[in-house]
Amino acid sequence: MESESKPKKIGILTAGGDCPGLNAAIRGVGKTAIVEYGMEVYGFNAGYLGLIENDYIKLSESQLSGILTEGGTILGTSREKPYKMVKKGKTKNPEKPKKIKKTYEKLGLDCVVCIGGNGTMKTANMLAQEGINVIGIPKTIDNDVWGTDVTFGFDSAVQVATEAVDRLHTTANSHQRVMIIEVMGHHAGWLALYSGLAGGGDIILIPEVPYNIRSVCKKIEKRYENKKPYSIVVVAEGIDHPKGKSAAAHIGEAIHTYTEIETRETVLGYVQRGGSPTPMDRILATQYGSYAAQCIADGCFGTMVAMNKNELTTIPLSEVGGNLRLVDEEHPLIVKARRMGVSFGDEYLNE
Amino acid sequence: MESESKPKKIGILTAGGDCPGLNAAIRGVGKTAIVEYGMEVYGFNAGYLGLIENDYIKLSESQLSGILTEGGTILGTSREKPYKMVKKGKTKNPEKPKKIKKTYEKLGLDCVVCIGGNGTMKTANMLAQEGINVIGIPKTIDNDVWGTDVTFGFDSAVQVATEAVDRLHTTANSHQRVMIIEVMGHHAGWLALYSGLAGGGDIILIPEVPYNIRSVCKKIEKRYENKKPYSIVVVAEGIDHPKGKSAAAHIGEAIHTYTEIETRETVLGYVQRGGSPTPMDRILATQYGSYAAQCIADGCFGTMVAMNKNELTTIPLSEVGGNLRLVDEEHPLIVKARRMGVSFGDEYLNE
Amino acid sequence: MESESKPKKIGILTAGGDCPGLNAAIRGVGKTAIVEYGMEVYGFNAGYLGLIENDYIKLSESQLSGILTEGGTILGTSREKPYKMVKKGKTKNPEKPKKIKKTYEKLGLDCVVCIGGNGTMKTANMLAQEGINVIGIPKTIDNDVWGTDVTFGFDSAVQVATEAVDRLHTTANSHQRVMIIEVMGHHAGWLALYSGLAGGGDIILIPEVPYNIRSVCKKIEKRYENKKPYSIVVVAEGIDHPKGKSAAAHIGEAIHTYTEIETRETVLGYVQRGGSPTPMDRILATQYGSYAAQCIADGCFGTMVAMNKNELTTIPLSEVGGNLRLVDEEHPLIVKARRMGVSFGDEYLNE
Amino acid sequence: MESESKPKKIGILTAGGDCPGLNAAIRGVGKTAIVEYGMEVYGFNAGYLGLIENDYIKLSESQLSGILTEGGTILGTSREKPYKMVKKGKTKNPEKPKKIKKTYEKLGLDCVVCIGGNGTMKTANMLAQEGINVIGIPKTIDNDVWGTDVTFGFDSAVQVATEAVDRLHTTANSHQRVMIIEVMGHHAGWLALYSGLAGGGDIILIPEVPYNIRSVCKKIEKRYENKKPYSIVVVAEGIDHPKGKSAAAHIGEAIHTYTEIETRETVLGYVQRGGSPTPMDRILATQYGSYAAQCIADGCFGTMVAMNKNELTTIPLSEVGGNLRLVDEEHPLIVKARRMGVSFGDEYLNE
Repeated sequence: MESESKPKKIGILTAGGDCPGLNAAIRGVGKTAIVEYGMEVYGFNAGYLGLIENDYIKLSESQLSGILTEGGTILGTSREKPYKMVKKGKTKNPEKPKKIKKTYEKLGLDCVVCIGGNGTMKTANMLAQEGINVIGIPKTIDNDVWGTDVTFGFDSAVQVATEAVDRLHTTANSHQRVMIIEVMGHHAGWLALYSGLAGGGDIILIPEVPYNIRSVCKKIEKRYENKKPYSIVVVAEGIDHPKGKSAAAHIGEAIHTYTEIETRETVLGYVQRGGSPTPMDRILATQYGSYAAQCIADGCFGTMVAMNKNELTTIPLSEVGGNLRLVDEEHPLIVKARRMGVSFGDEYLNE
Repeated sequence: MESESKPKKIGILTAGGDCPGLNAAIRGVGKTAIVEYGMEVYGFNAGYLGLIENDYIKLSESQLSGILTEGGTILGTSREKPYKMVKKGKTKNPEKPKKIKKTYEKLGLDCVVCIGGNGTMKTANMLAQEGINVIGIPKTIDNDVWGTDVTFGFDSAVQVATEAVDRLHTTANSHQRVMIIEVMGHHAGWLALYSGLAGGGDIILIPEVPYNIRSVCKKIEKRYENKKPYSIVVVAEGIDHPKGKSAAAHIGEAIHTYTEIETRETVLGYVQRGGSPTPMDRILATQYGSYAAQCIADGCFGTMVAMNKNELTTIPLSEVGGNLRLVDEEHPLIVKARRMGVSFGDEYLNE
Repeated sequence: MESESKPKKIGILTAGGDCPGLNAAIRGVGKTAIVEYGMEVYGFNAGYLGLIENDYIKLSESQLSGILTEGGTILGTSREKPYKMVKKGKTKNPEKPKKIKKTYEKLGLDCVVCIGGNGTMKTANMLAQEGINVIGIPKTIDNDVWGTDVTFGFDSAVQVATEAVDRLHTTANSHQRVMIIEVMGHHAGWLALYSGLAGGGDIILIPEVPYNIRSVCKKIEKRYENKKPYSIVVVAEGIDHPKGKSAAAHIGEAIHTYTEIETRETVLGYVQRGGSPTPMDRILATQYGSYAAQCIADGCFGTMVAMNKNELTTIPLSEVGGNLRLVDEEHPLIVKARRMGVSFGDEYLNE
Repeated sequence: MESESKPKKIGILTAGGDCPGLNAAIRGVGKTAIVEYGMEVYGFNAGYLGLIENDYIKLSESQLSGILTEGGTILGTSREKPYKMVKKGKTKNPEKPKKIKKTYEKLGLDCVVCIGGNGTMKTANMLAQEGINVIGIPKTIDNDVWGTDVTFGFDSAVQVATEAVDRLHTTANSHQRVMIIEVMGHHAGWLALYSGLAGGGDIILIPEVPYNIRSVCKKIEKRYENKKPYSIVVVAEGIDHPKGKSAAAHIGEAIHTYTEIETRETVLGYVQRGGSPTPMDRILATQYGSYAAQCIADGCFGTMVAMNKNELTTIPLSEVGGNLRLVDEEHPLIVKARRMGVSFGDEYLNE
């Protein structure tokens, strides 16, 4: 068959916020495509912008060497959303999707691999509906992409955040203070939950579990009475709090007001998404990338690669977009943490 | 009911080689038992030796604070095997099991939680058959305990080994050498496989995949021809090699003999099992520990807690003992790695 | 001689903000005092508060084992200043110094070792003037204690801050942004200078070098023109900026206003002073501690141990108190950094 | 003056074993030369080999960006010694120096910066004597270059080795074993001394202090009697031991023979010289590099840049070559360590 005789041409792009493992995923796609399937691989610059503006580089195997351990993305990224409403709720700009189609056809691509988070998958799905072959690869330190048990970037972020919690312990103990640390997570509390547990946090506040500040303070006071005059509070940035200040500042001030115990806040910020990926993120990103190349060879388009109960699988992009994978209030980790005395800020609501 | 009115008494011990996460597991068992179930908790010193010699300490909640992040085990460990044959293949010493039973009854224990690897589970199963209530928790950096998808200690060991591989890359490149690194794994190649992939190893040799030294050399020479005059070889200590020298030394010398390329060997050794556990190992060990306490409360004895497709479960100890979980030659990671050009030393056997 | 027949009694306290290496210093004093000189060692809790309230523990050699690598301080610390004016500028409270003297005499101490920063040395000097034998040991992550070339805690803080700068690089590059990172340093810019240089910062702003925001922006724009559309700006918290916002936020907003380039800010916070000390900080703190014990044996009171051109020495406490060691504008590191193209925000003031 | 009107042309090479900070030094030389002095910069490949074979690349400022944090050397290195005797003690091959001179003149170089250890400095001195302008920059993880207080690479190696010692502590404690760790250092014991002290080693054996195995065992037994049934022994690879086995194996076996305590050995190996340099090594290498460029501008040839009592200086290459900076038996760190109970294996020689 002719279609098998000529090498396939594929594109890769990374979109949305950067996170550790993007280069490992690019390498996974590219090396498998080149070594195993003899495909030609093009990397688009700055996410969907490169696709719109026909801005790309051809990737050889040697360009993919040595990037496995590097943070960030050799392709660059952007927040460009080609299907964004021109006026909110009104109308879309049809120019950008047109340009993408033009680039796709001009280059004679057989597929574009879109590496990103929820927003990226949503766009990828729209491209698929326009007849472009796409495969999605889920990445985000928030771990909240629907349809997969885990995204790469998460393990690395947990490590950075946990190391920070570890460091705060010594100051909390030495000064007998309440240390509040705010980690990323606008909607999902995965990062706060994992780094809170791994760091031995006493109180963990996440968007999915509504907290009550009196409950938080009661936990701190009980520890005080039990001769533990210091506490670590891990909060996700997306918990309920007034605008104009950080979640950490809000919680810190409230605790100080009620308990009069000294508090100190840390907003961990962008260090959570930078740096070399952990070994497990390198492996996960590599697997996703390699599997995406296999999916192209198999013609399994319009899907996102995913991990389901430890097995690589695919899920239709149409099922992914717009949905978030949040922490269940009865998640086994929460249930177990409560049994060990960790507070989620909601224990004493009715007392 | 009377059985509910008095607190249960439980023992904990850690046996076999130490690994990161043992303290997290002890804390998980102990805190859940005390905080949630009001049990009394006793820690036995030096593995089964403590049980034999009635050597223990009572553990309070405060003694379990601050150990989550510590490597090693606060209870100590030993290689003591109470059911070991006195003379090989002949007869067992009935004294030690008797003493264990005496300790168990004298203290009025309701269960003993045995944290360890395959050997420990085997012993735990024998104790169970003598009527002692036991629950096993699997740990080992080798990740080879039958019946569970993962053991704690493994993630930490992968991190240490991968960091070492990362470091060797710079010397390999700068000096254009072949660097051979030997990681732990007598029977199972999990650690070599994971750290090899995460570290970007070019050749990975594990006990489960028989290698041929000519195949190894051919891969190195092909890289040389492709202007990559350096290679990283990750080997498990348990691969086929002559006695009297390390696996790394054997492979290094063989490569040098055939290819005349400069080689250097590193045997990573005991650093792989020491130090603070990774966040994921802390969480896994904590979950296992907490779940073991729950199993005690539920009376689910004679089992090992396990992770199966991301879910906590139990498996009868009788099914665990004596079996090893090895790497399948067709494991998805191996298949994917091959497609990206990684050699497992068996590619050119028939050329 | 009678003075030799009975062992000397010494006290140790840690005061002011905690930092990595405090335990190493305590261990250095204590082990040398006990092993070499046969002294009795008492640890006062929570800084000068323990001395005021006669709150102490006796330290044995075994209690000093295993703390070398631990962050924080086993003795706790506080900001208590016994000589603080009761009403500003008016009168001192004579009660606290009296109580200290009482504790000192009651216990029959021969010396108190005071480990801390500038404030702690000032207090130690006042105690010395009242006839109490004191020896000071300088610690602070700010590295700004007068009379010594270096304080322990600094090397560890440089490492944490540099790691953070390293992580921000990947996001800066991937997103083509200006990343601003604020590190500690109210008066002295040592930490910003060192982590800025070690992290490859493009612009470094410190309190000792007055900056001009137009100069900062010009540097960023020049990089942009040279196809480097991202920059790293490292700022000390103590640089000139309006109250009510962080230094990082001020600089970030100003850059965005002038250049319209996207900016992101990170305030690193308390993670800079926590965690295990670096090897060099462990060694420095150990040396200071051991040398302090030797000074006691030699009767060299009223001094602070110090490092001067790589040699251990002492300096009278009366010369230390109240002075700060700041970065000289012509410091060799600044001169060299400028020559390599690093901006300190003052280059284009007169253009 | 004409000599000032045209840019100077300079070469850079890295020779001998690789170590962390080489790229930082290359960047320091290159950026200062280009940005401050407008020089042209050429990088020679694979140490002196590149100079012999006229194998070089021109380095632009942008090629020097992003390498500060990278381990290894972008120029490659080799053990090539152009002045090596053809037959031992007999005669030199005059061809190689001739070729070097030819390359130097053909390219019209004004100076070659030679970055390396003792051997590299020796060669650099010989080139200087032939009329070639050279400047040396000292690097080595062994810290044993004569004429400077410190070399870059050392701080990074201390960190790697100390981390390894930290990890072994947990196994030593948990299993009550004697753990022996061998670190690099053929002639000088700096690395063993520093990592031994920073890691809390109980016994430190270095080439400069002759040890006695009975003294080593006595220390271990005394610890045993004092209820510390585990010990950490840090040995330099260059201590007196029989050929055919490692220093660690020799010491481990001897201890086991005399004391019957379980021992385990680790030979740390090449991981000590790889990976990203520590912040302090990055700064030191940058300073050395930048200062070397300044020395070229000043015409200060035939010298090695050096650190003397915290100040940058130069020392004639003729004074450096062939000499080693060893640890003095009365070094303050040794004296202080002994006072705290650390053994150097020579305490009980005469008992």
